[in-house]
Amino acid sequence: MVLRDIHSPADLKRIPLDQLAPIADQLRDYIIDTLSSHPGHLASSLGTVELTIALHYVFNTPDDKLVWDVGHQAYAHKILTGRGERFSTIRTYGGLSGFPKMSESPYDAFGTGHSSTSISAALGMATASRLQGNTSRCHIAVIGDGALSGGEAFEALNNVGDSRANLLIVLNDNGISIDKAVGGLNGYLTRITASRRYNKLKQQVWQRLDGSDDGRRHDRVLDFFQRLTSTAKTVAVGGSNLFEALGIRYFGPVDGHNINDLVDILKRLRDIEGPKLLHVVTKKGKGLRQAEQNPVAYHAPGLYDIRTGNRIKAEEVDKPLKYQEVFGRTIIELAQQNPAIVGITPAMATGCSLNMMMEQMPDRVFDVGIAEQHAVTFSAGLAAAGMIPFCNIYSSFAQRAYDQIIHDVALQRLPVVICLDRAGLVGDDGPTHHGTFDLAYLRPVPNLTVCAPMNEHELRNMMYTAQLPGHGPMVIRYPRGASVHSDWQSDFCEIRVGEGRCLRNGKDVAIVSLGHPGNDALQAAEELEAQGISVAVYDMRFLKPLDTRMLDAIAAAGYRRIVTVEDGCRLGGFGEAVTEYFATSHPEAVCRVSILAIPDEFVTHGSVPQLKADCHIDKSAIIHAAKS
Amino acid sequence: MVLRDIHSPADLKRIPLDQLAPIADQLRDYIIDTLSSHPGHLASSLGTVELTIALHYVFNTPDDKLVWDVGHQAYAHKILTGRGERFSTIRTYGGLSGFPKMSESPYDAFGTGHSSTSISAALGMATASRLQGNTSRCHIAVIGDGALSGGEAFEALNNVGDSRANLLIVLNDNGISIDKAVGGLNGYLTRITASRRYNKLKQQVWQRLDGSDDGRRHDRVLDFFQRLTSTAKTVAVGGSNLFEALGIRYFGPVDGHNINDLVDILKRLRDIEGPKLLHVVTKKGKGLRQAEQNPVAYHAPGLYDIRTGNRIKAEEVDKPLKYQEVFGRTIIELAQQNPAIVGITPAMATGCSLNMMMEQMPDRVFDVGIAEQHAVTFSAGLAAAGMIPFCNIYSSFAQRAYDQIIHDVALQRLPVVICLDRAGLVGDDGPTHHGTFDLAYLRPVPNLTVCAPMNEHELRNMMYTAQLPGHGPMVIRYPRGASVHSDWQSDFCEIRVGEGRCLRNGKDVAIVSLGHPGNDALQAAEELEAQGISVAVYDMRFLKPLDTRMLDAIAAAGYRRIVTVEDGCRLGGFGEAVTEYFATSHPEAVCRVSILAIPDEFVTHGSVPQLKADCHIDKSAIIHAAKS
Repeated sequence: MVLRDIHSPADLKRIPLDQLAPIADQLRDYIIDTLSSHPGHLASSLGTVELTIALHYVFNTPDDKLVWDVGHQAYAHKILTGRGERFSTIRTYGGLSGFPKMSESPYDAFGTGHSSTSISAALGMATASRLQGNTSRCHIAVIGDGALSGGEAFEALNNVGDSRANLLIVLNDNGISIDKAVGGLNGYLTRITASRRYNKLKQQVWQRLDGSDDGRRHDRVLDFFQRLTSTAKTVAVGGSNLFEALGIRYFGPVDGHNINDLVDILKRLRDIEGPKLLHVVTKKGKGLRQAEQNPVAYHAPGLYDIRTGNRIKAEEVDKPLKYQEVFGRTIIELAQQNPAIVGITPAMATGCSLNMMMEQMPDRVFDVGIAEQHAVTFSAGLAAAGMIPFCNIYSSFAQRAYDQIIHDVALQRLPVVICLDRAGLVGDDGPTHHGTFDLAYLRPVPNLTVCAPMNEHELRNMMYTAQLPGHGPMVIRYPRGASVHSDWQSDFCEIRVGEGRCLRNGKDVAIVSLGHPGNDALQAAEELEAQGISVAVYDMRFLKPLDTRMLDAIAAAGYRRIVTVEDGCRLGGFGEAVTEYFATSHPEAVCRVSILAIPDEFVTHGSVPQLKADCHIDKSAIIHAAKS
Repeated sequence: MVLRDIHSPADLKRIPLDQLAPIADQLRDYIIDTLSSHPGHLASSLGTVELTIALHYVFNTPDDKLVWDVGHQAYAHKILTGRGERFSTIRTYGGLSGFPKMSESPYDAFGTGHSSTSISAALGMATASRLQGNTSRCHIAVIGDGALSGGEAFEALNNVGDSRANLLIVLNDNGISIDKAVGGLNGYLTRITASRRYNKLKQQVWQRLDGSDDGRRHDRVLDFFQRLTSTAKTVAVGGSNLFEALGIRYFGPVDGHNINDLVDILKRLRDIEGPKLLHVVTKKGKGLRQAEQNPVAYHAPGLYDIRTGNRIKAEEVDKPLKYQEVFGRTIIELAQQNPAIVGITPAMATGCSLNMMMEQMPDRVFDVGIAEQHAVTFSAGLAAAGMIPFCNIYSSFAQRAYDQIIHDVALQRLPVVICLDRAGLVGDDGPTHHGTFDLAYLRPVPNLTVCAPMNEHELRNMMYTAQLPGHGPMVIRYPRGASVHSDWQSDFCEIRVGEGRCLRNGKDVAIVSLGHPGNDALQAAEELEAQGISVAVYDMRFLKPLDTRMLDAIAAAGYRRIVTVEDGCRLGGFGEAVTEYFATSHPEAVCRVSILAIPDEFVTHGSVPQLKADCHIDKSAIIHAAKS
């Protein structure tokens, strides 16, 4: 049988065990081939090819429940569960999601995208099965070592140990998050797998297991495992096993690229009741030399040459830098001038460009792992002791730190600068990753200043302003991708907090924007001007405090129509804030306001221009609203 | 010296070591005496009297930084740091906060209230000291075993092990959260402290330490500790120490009520560089028999008789039940009818009354520990497998699970019923605990239904409705304390989602309320009627979806004034939602709307009536707004 004949795990199960390895090779090649021209998350999925085959070979999916943490690594799973032919549509508008998604397939037992949720979800399902009297259903959470550093995973582990759930946690240990894995846990896992004495022991045990047939000599095998693990505890890591301490039976580590071994141990574990953890060691990027050598760059490499494996970079002549790069370079400039500045990232050093500062000032940047809550309170602690932390978090991940922003930063007015990267629509990653709620959930928080730059100069000046003395907590949110000008390195200039600016004058219509959408507003104004409509554009800069003096002037100017535009959700957002102010202070102006914002629904994945058009927040939508 | 002569840790330090124990007794008596008539958090603070004395005796506070996790246990700390005379004002309007608060005292190094933040904050401060070149400053986080189950604490531990921070974590292990501690971690700590071989060993080591003078024979002492801890690892708990696995040096367990031992070991630990953890075993409620025997009831016992120690219960003849009790009894009724219903609480079983169901149906209630994130995703997993989880979380703690509500529940439209207890102003606990942001942060989340009952019948019917087939995720938020009627047990009746109700008709003014404030609205209407103003009252019930048909009718009815009232924050809240709808659909009505809601600032602690008056959301404020 060949890969293209496999349309479901049932097809896979018809293949003899010793013929699975070639299927793994085909699967890996298919992923490498497809993603070379259809960009996606490459390295994670290459690392889990054998594991995925073994899981579907052994377990009775979809009745058995398989939850992939984060989901970057689930491409092989998608291909093996009837989505092989559509695989090239992954992450495109109308195509497959880049993450497991319940509505996409019954094999996707739980939707993921954000990290560290899988054990909680699988424990919920296992608990439901127990309550429903189903004792045979298996529940599997596959979680990476990086995701395990997220607090929710620990909360779940703490509950798993106490439960009688029929739950298997597969720890997919590749020593890497998107960036290098950090923290005590990572060191701990490395010590387990590096222990020679442990590995020798393991080998002996495997050899003795080789002769046993499946499941029959169950007791003998169990006994082996128990000896294996209790020995592992005392030998491998100086006498400790963290998972056993929490009451979870630990098995492993096993080679995650040996299908036979994986199938063997999974079959045995399937028959052991209660919660257990299998530690699987994999290589991120396995099978593509460049990806193995540089899994950070090949996490989501974009286009690459299928023959050489080298990434294909678009020519970038005089192209504006990404906002990310402007952030990364600017914080270095500021930190050189201001010794109190430090950078904090929860595992997104490369994505947010703090890796640049990390290289130049390694002592002043802290990658805390996938740990948004800690990132924010740690920043608050730094600020309480006189530092000025720039804590950079992707907007949608900052939802994880909402309480800490309120309770540790805002309530105490600590001068933490929270930079929300990937604000607004992010495109291909879809609904789990769009940063569209931040304006609405931050606006009600007292003491916060919330602003959004519409280009790289504004970003630089907001960052500069935030680190000046006397400022309280400040949130700067900006989108993923290219900024606007090619001359990014403007001189620093303080922005008065709460002060917007008029970008162009006009008589008929006012467009009032916040952040990057101001660029669409300017273009729309030009097109409208050409059609004989005179349009003013105001860049409000600050969601909070609102520039009420500017709004007073706008209300008084007698525009026929006032259009607000933002790349966040409508409910509770910027347009509503403007409307609320007019309602209170200029009720006569309210009837002239049109709010352009993201409607009250989750936005799918696809290109940003496509999604902006769908949400009616693009240039065309502005023009349409201005004319109505 | 006696307690009343101690106005600062400097005074304390002048007392010879062997005379500290009597001070502890006086301190304990002072707390017991004061709280008998001035209610507060009793049992936690009784457990940490000796520890608090020892910490201030050894460390150089406030230059050394002392962070109390949660802060319930910091009363002795407040008394010893110059706040003894004002202690009886604790938790009253204008008086001392019930929690550490930076603005209250330089000895409060970091404000707390919510759980599991202390290690992150102290690590931030320790990191700042290191960067600032201060190598002598010590940083101490005191965290309970319950708080350690919160994911943020683990995220912090994972980073501590990797750091070179001069940080001491004091694990205050009393085997209890507010309710009984749960989870694998709790079992683990119990195994450590229960190990006989370990305790024997410890005793030997302490005896040998007795002869050594302070800090001089440092190496020898260190050697002892190292042997002690490495032996502890292999002996006490079957060969494992969780903290050492994460790279943090573990010391203990030590008796948290032996001041001499505590002072001794803290002095030694002060001189050991880098991160370390001291495991201190304390008894919650120590010194008051009833509190020791029933630390759950005596966590915050209210008034009690100073001589007998017995709680003084107010007479309750025909008094309405608390919303909490109505929730607790109603979920049992529903669960008896519907086998799919389960209850989930993150460590607030008694506070939210799920303890009632836990007694009757122990298999169907899950206390997951202080773990809001896990609570919500675990609920989502249960729902994905066909159960109907009622996940009860205090409103302000749900801020911890915001991402999980969006990403795991709402995005997947899973039928989780999220019951937000302690919504609105909670009173004495103050700004960390007011549940005033929930309406604003939940309104932008697509697919959610958000409602608020104005009395116990409404609460019952909303709970009944939420568990009927075909509903998506539903949030029911209700306040702390007494509901309205004495006949709480009404028949169940389905409420149509998104349908408000007219409570009384009127011609001049319409009051539009959400939830419990509707009762103030009714009273205000009666008073206004007596003054010749005819007032209609509408209970909207649902923040989302809004009853736009009712709003259409209100707009059309030609009221002179429309007053919205809610017990949540104004920005992004209910009043703004109504205003936004009018602005879009009935702009002529906008100028007649007055929004009564909590202004854009953190609300202090005090009685709820006082705070409602301060925020202009009480009956008087409604009357005033209606007349204006």
